[in-house]
Amino acid sequence: MTDLSKGAAWINGRIIPIADASIPVTDWGVTHSDIGYDVVPVWKGAFFRLEDYLDRFMASLKALRMEIPQDRSAIRTALAEMVAASGLQNAYVAMVAARGRNPVPGSRDPRDCDNHFYAWCVPYVHIVKPEIAQTGTSVWIAKTVRRIPQDSVNPRVKNYHWGDFTSGLFEAKDRGFETTMLLDHDGNVTEGPGFNVFAVFGDRIVTSDHGVLHGITRQTVLDMAAARGMGIETRALPLEEFWQADEVFLSSSGGGVIPVTKVDDRHFSNGAPGPVARHLRADYFEWLDRDALCTPVPYP
Amino acid sequence: MTDLSKGAAWINGRIIPIADASIPVTDWGVTHSDIGYDVVPVWKGAFFRLEDYLDRFMASLKALRMEIPQDRSAIRTALAEMVAASGLQNAYVAMVAARGRNPVPGSRDPRDCDNHFYAWCVPYVHIVKPEIAQTGTSVWIAKTVRRIPQDSVNPRVKNYHWGDFTSGLFEAKDRGFETTMLLDHDGNVTEGPGFNVFAVFGDRIVTSDHGVLHGITRQTVLDMAAARGMGIETRALPLEEFWQADEVFLSSSGGGVIPVTKVDDRHFSNGAPGPVARHLRADYFEWLDRDALCTPVPYP
Repeated sequence: MTDLSKGAAWINGRIIPIADASIPVTDWGVTHSDIGYDVVPVWKGAFFRLEDYLDRFMASLKALRMEIPQDRSAIRTALAEMVAASGLQNAYVAMVAARGRNPVPGSRDPRDCDNHFYAWCVPYVHIVKPEIAQTGTSVWIAKTVRRIPQDSVNPRVKNYHWGDFTSGLFEAKDRGFETTMLLDHDGNVTEGPGFNVFAVFGDRIVTSDHGVLHGITRQTVLDMAAARGMGIETRALPLEEFWQADEVFLSSSGGGVIPVTKVDDRHFSNGAPGPVARHLRADYFEWLDRDALCTPVPYP
Repeated sequence: MTDLSKGAAWINGRIIPIADASIPVTDWGVTHSDIGYDVVPVWKGAFFRLEDYLDRFMASLKALRMEIPQDRSAIRTALAEMVAASGLQNAYVAMVAARGRNPVPGSRDPRDCDNHFYAWCVPYVHIVKPEIAQTGTSVWIAKTVRRIPQDSVNPRVKNYHWGDFTSGLFEAKDRGFETTMLLDHDGNVTEGPGFNVFAVFGDRIVTSDHGVLHGITRQTVLDMAAARGMGIETRALPLEEFWQADEVFLSSSGGGVIPVTKVDDRHFSNGAPGPVARHLRADYFEWLDRDALCTPVPYP
C-alpha cells in the first residue's frame, strides 16, 4: 500500500503520493504562472460547499479560456476519489488547471497550448495557527507593495500571482507579525495571502468588493452575518475608515473566521477577539457540520 | 546515449532530457509563482554577454531574498555543462531559482522554504518568427489590461507573473496580430511578453525606464545606438508621443532587434522596416559574433 497520509495527487487519472506530483518546468503554468485553481476544504470527512467551489473553478476556466479534458462531473469524481484514497478526514484540496506546454514549435500563441487538469490534497491548512487564531492574530499592512490591480490580473480568477503577497509577508515576518494585508493604489484595504478582510462597525460588517477574491468563506461570513441580522456592506474600504473599526477579522477556507487583535502598532477590541468575530468564528465551525452544505467523501 | 537534442535540464546536479524536467506542484515556485529567473542566449556555440545575465540573475536572487546552494561560479558551470551536453549550437538557456517547498508543517513563512536552483535549455527561441521579424511585425496594444505596476511586482526582477501579458496575447491573436504590448496605468508604453519597446524620432531612440525589465538586449540596443552616434532617452514614453514615432522596434534576447510595421491600425515607416531598425538589427547579429562579448560553450 502506498502511503498517502501526507497527501495525494490526481494526475492524468492516476492517484499518487503528493511528494511525487510535479509539473514540467516548461509548462506555461510555471513559466507564465498561467494557472487557474481553487481550493475546497474537507472537514470531518466531508467537502464543504463543494458546488460553490466548483462553480468558481469552472468560471475561472472560462475566464482564462482554458479547455481541459475533464468536465465538472469528472472533476468532482477525481477530487472525491483522491481524498477518499488519501484517507484524510480534514484536508486542503486543490483543483488546478494549467495552460500546459505549447506543442507547436516556435509558437507563442496561448491558444496552441495543451491545457490540463490536476488536483492534490494535503492535511488541512490553517493560514494562521489555530492557537493564534483563537486568541487573535497580528496583521502588518505592507508598506513597499500595493495589491496587483484588478485591471492587470483579475483577482476573482483565483491565481498564483503572489509576488505582492510574498513581499508583504517578508515585511510582516521581519517585524514579528503573523501575516500581511495589502492596500490598493487608492489606499483602500484589499486582501492578504489566502484571506479576505472584514471590519466591524457596531452591527454592520464591511468588506471590499473590488480588487479581491470573492472568497467562498467571505460569502459564508456574509451569509452568517445576515442570519444574525447584521448589516452587510461590500464596497471600497478606505484605510482611514478601517482604523475606526470596532473589530477586525479575516476569512479563509483555511481556518474560517480569524479574529485580528493588532494591525501595525494599533490594537483592536482591547487586544482580544471581539464579540462579533467570536460569534462568527463559532458559527463557521457549526456551519461546517451542516448536512445541507456538506458532501461526504466516499472513503473505502 | 540519451537524446538531448530537443533540450536538456540541470536539476540537482543531474543533466536530463527537457521532457523529464519537472517541479513539485506544491513548490512555492508554482503555487506562489515565487521564482526569479533569467535567460541567456547561446548563438553559434557561445553564450552572449553571459556575465551580464549572471549579474542580473544574482541581483534578482538578492531582491527576492533567495539563498540557493550554488554560487555564481557553480551556476556558470552548470549552464556550460548542460548546454555542452545538449550539443545545441543556438539555444535559449534558462536559469531559475524557486522558493521551494516549506518543510515546516503549517508554516506560511517564506523564510522557512528550501530555495533551489535549476536550469534548462531548448533550441533558440524567436519571440517573433524570423521571417516575420525580417519584414516587420504587428503589435496590438492591450485594451483590457494594464501592465502590473512596479510597486506591485518589480519587473526588473525577471519573473513569471505573466497574467497581464497572456490576456494581451489573447486579444492580439484573436485580431490576427503577432504580439502585444501593454500600457501602464498612466498611459505610458511599457513592454510586451519577452521584449522591450523602442520608438525612433529622427536620430534619437526612446525606451521606457520604469515599469519594465531592464533587458540585456535593451542595453545592447542602447550601446549599439550610442556607437552609431544616436541620441538615447530612457524615460516615460506616453502613448500620444509614441504615435508620432518615425519607427518602432522591439528588443529581445529571443531575436534581437525586431522592426514593427503596424501597431493597432496604424502603419509605421510606410509598412516596411525603417532604416534605424534595419541597421540595429544587422548590428545585433554582428555583435553576437564579437569575441569580447562571447563565452564559448565547452562542447565535448
